[in-house]
Amino acid sequence: MPDLCAIEKPTLLLDSSRAKRNIARMADKARLSGVRFRPHFKTHQSLEIGTWFREQGASAITVSSVDMALGFADAGWEDILIAFPANLRQVKAFDALARRIHLELLVESPESVAFLEERLSHGVDAWIKVDVGNRRTGIMISDRDALAALARKIAASRRLRLRGLLTHAGQTYHAKSTGQIQQIFRESVQKMNEARETLARAGLGWLELSYGDTPACTLVDDFSGIDEIHPGNFIFYDLTQQRLGVCGEEDIAVAVACPVVARHCEAGMVGALQRIVIYGGAVHLSKEYLEQNGETCYGGLATLNEGGWGPMWPGAYLASLSQEHGVARVTAEHFERIQVGDLVAVIPVHSCLAVDLHRQYLTNDGRVVPLKLWERPDSSRDPIT
Amino acid sequence: MPDLCAIEKPTLLLDSSRAKRNIARMADKARLSGVRFRPHFKTHQSLEIGTWFREQGASAITVSSVDMALGFADAGWEDILIAFPANLRQVKAFDALARRIHLELLVESPESVAFLEERLSHGVDAWIKVDVGNRRTGIMISDRDALAALARKIAASRRLRLRGLLTHAGQTYHAKSTGQIQQIFRESVQKMNEARETLARAGLGWLELSYGDTPACTLVDDFSGIDEIHPGNFIFYDLTQQRLGVCGEEDIAVAVACPVVARHCEAGMVGALQRIVIYGGAVHLSKEYLEQNGETCYGGLATLNEGGWGPMWPGAYLASLSQEHGVARVTAEHFERIQVGDLVAVIPVHSCLAVDLHRQYLTNDGRVVPLKLWERPDSSRDPIT
Repeated sequence: MPDLCAIEKPTLLLDSSRAKRNIARMADKARLSGVRFRPHFKTHQSLEIGTWFREQGASAITVSSVDMALGFADAGWEDILIAFPANLRQVKAFDALARRIHLELLVESPESVAFLEERLSHGVDAWIKVDVGNRRTGIMISDRDALAALARKIAASRRLRLRGLLTHAGQTYHAKSTGQIQQIFRESVQKMNEARETLARAGLGWLELSYGDTPACTLVDDFSGIDEIHPGNFIFYDLTQQRLGVCGEEDIAVAVACPVVARHCEAGMVGALQRIVIYGGAVHLSKEYLEQNGETCYGGLATLNEGGWGPMWPGAYLASLSQEHGVARVTAEHFERIQVGDLVAVIPVHSCLAVDLHRQYLTNDGRVVPLKLWERPDSSRDPIT
Repeated sequence: MPDLCAIEKPTLLLDSSRAKRNIARMADKARLSGVRFRPHFKTHQSLEIGTWFREQGASAITVSSVDMALGFADAGWEDILIAFPANLRQVKAFDALARRIHLELLVESPESVAFLEERLSHGVDAWIKVDVGNRRTGIMISDRDALAALARKIAASRRLRLRGLLTHAGQTYHAKSTGQIQQIFRESVQKMNEARETLARAGLGWLELSYGDTPACTLVDDFSGIDEIHPGNFIFYDLTQQRLGVCGEEDIAVAVACPVVARHCEAGMVGALQRIVIYGGAVHLSKEYLEQNGETCYGGLATLNEGGWGPMWPGAYLASLSQEHGVARVTAEHFERIQVGDLVAVIPVHSCLAVDLHRQYLTNDGRVVPLKLWERPDSSRDPIT
C-alpha cells in the first residue's frame, strides 16, 4: 500500500490489479477470436508494464514514436509497429531499428514509399494506413485507385514488404451510444474486407487487416474478419471511456493524487457547488476535457484510500486548469469534509495524455514504476526493476 | 542559425532576440514606473534564460512550484516568490528553502498560516492572495473582514512576515478588447488600494501590492499604485496574446518545428481548406485551444527559415491534436507548396504549456538551451552553459 502521507505533490497513481485485469481481458478476447494482439504501448510508456503484456502472451507491440520504439527495442521487444505515418526525417533511425528488430511502418503516399525505398538498407514491413471515417489521416478506404497504386508501389519495392491495411477508427470517440460504436466497427471491418478483396483481385495478394481503437476493441467480442488488434488506452481507460459507456468506473486504473491548497465557499443558492483549489494543473493532467451538462470537465474527483481511490464524487468535477492550479466544483457535503492539505484523486479525462506528463507511477501496492526511461540517457539501459 | 536539416522531430524553437526584446521592454517599463520587476519564471523554466533577466536588472523572481524554486535557488537566485497557494504538504521543502534564500509564499486561509507557523523554523514573507475577479483562488478583495482576520493572524506569527496583497487578474484573458484589459487593471488596482487603506486603518501597516497578468502588464504603461509586477508569459507571448491584441505576431518568441507526415486533398468546393498531417501533437503543444470563427484552433502555422519563422499563413490553423498527430487546415496555395518530409512552424496557443512539454530550446542562432534541468538529478547542478 502506498504511503499517502509521503505524497507531497501531484502524483500519478496506478491500480496495477485493474491494469493487469484490463490487459488479461483484451488478451483473452484476442486469443478467442484468433487475432494477433499487438497492444499500443503509447498509453503506458513503461518498460515494466510492458512485461505484464508479455506475461499475457504479447510478443508484438505498437508504439507511436521512434523514441518509444528504441526504448522498447532496448528492453528486448523484437516486433514493433510504429503506428504513425512514417516520418521521413527519421529514416536513419528506422534503418538502425530495422537492422536490430522486425520493424513495421505506416505509409500512405507513393512519395513516402519512394523515399524509404531509396534510403533504407534493411527491410521493413509496411502497412497502408486507411481512413474508415475518422478523417485524421490515411487513404480513404473507398479510394480503390489510390490504394491499388500504393500497394503496387510497395509490392515493387525491395526494402518494404506489403503487409496489409491498418486503421484507427477514432470516430468511435464521437459515437452517441455503445451500439453505434459496435456499428462503426462492423462497417469499418466490412469496408476493409471489401478493399482487401479488390486488392487481391488486382493481384496484390491477401493483405492483413489491423484495427485499433479502444472503444470498439472493448465492446466487440468477435473480431472475425480482421487479423490484428492494436488498442492502447484500454490498459488504463479514463473518464472519456467511462462516459462513452466503454468501461465502468471500476476499470479505470490511473488517477492523479493532488493536494488541496485552498477552498472557497460560494455564497448563494442552497445546493450550489463549492470551489476547491488543488495543486494539479495542465502540466499534470493535460487540458483534455469533456463537455458535461453544458460544463467543461477536466476530470472526476474521488477520495484516496490506502488501496487506491474510491468511487467518483457525484456532481463534482474539475472545472478549470491553469499551468499548476486546478479548480474543482464539489457539493456542499464534500466541501465540508475537505481540508487544505488533504489529498484528492483526480480521474483523468484522457489517461494517455495525463500519463505522458509524469515520470513514474506509484502503484497501489506502494511501488514506483518508472516511465519514459528512454528520455533519461543515463538510465535508459537500466535493467527493469 | 539552426540547421533545419538536422531537425527530425518536433522541436521547440526560440527566437532569442525577440525574447530578449520582450524582457527589456517590460523591465524598462517597470523601472520607469518605479515598481519592482519580479518576473514569473514558470514560462521559460530555464536557468540560462534566467540570466537574461538578471542582465536587465531583475534580482527577485516568481515561480509556480517548489521544484522550480529549488532549481533557481541552486542557480543563485536568492529572492524567490512561489506564486501558488502554499501547499502545506511541502512545508519541509519551504523550510529548507527559507534557510538558504529569501522565500515568499502565498497564503489565503488562517488554517494555512497556523500550520506554517507551527512547522517552519525559518522566516518567510507572506503575501495574501486576493481575488479581484478571476475566481480562480484567493480571498475576495471585497471581503474586508476575511482580509483583516488573515492579516492579523500573519502579523501575530513569528515565522511569517506580512508582506502585502498579491493578485493574478486572469480575467483579462477573457476581455473583449484591449481597452477592457486596461479597464480591468485600473479597477483591480483601485480595489487593492482601497483594501490596503482599510487594512492600514485597522493598524496592519502599509502593505505592498503585487500584480501579475501579462495582458495588463503589457498594455499598461503606468503602474502607479502598485509596488511590484510579476508577469511571466510576456517573454514569449503566443497566439492567445496576439489574438487578444496584447502583442504583435512579431513579438512571439517560440514556435514548434514539426515534420509534415501526410497531406490529403479534400475534394469539394473551390477554396476549401486542405488537410496536412504533422508530427506534432498534444504531447508537444498541449491541448490548449482558441475558438476562431466557430472553429477550434490549436495553433497557427508558418514557414520555417534559417532565421526562425515567417508570418503566419492566412486562413490556416491547426484544427485537431491527438497524442502525436496534428491535423492542420491550409489554403490550396500553401497545400500545393508543402511536401511530406517538410518542416512547418507551429505558433502555440499557450507558450507556457507548450514549453513545459519540452526538454530544451533550439535558438535561432543554433544553440541548445536546456530547460527544467532540475528534473534531471544528475545535471541539475551543472554550471550554466
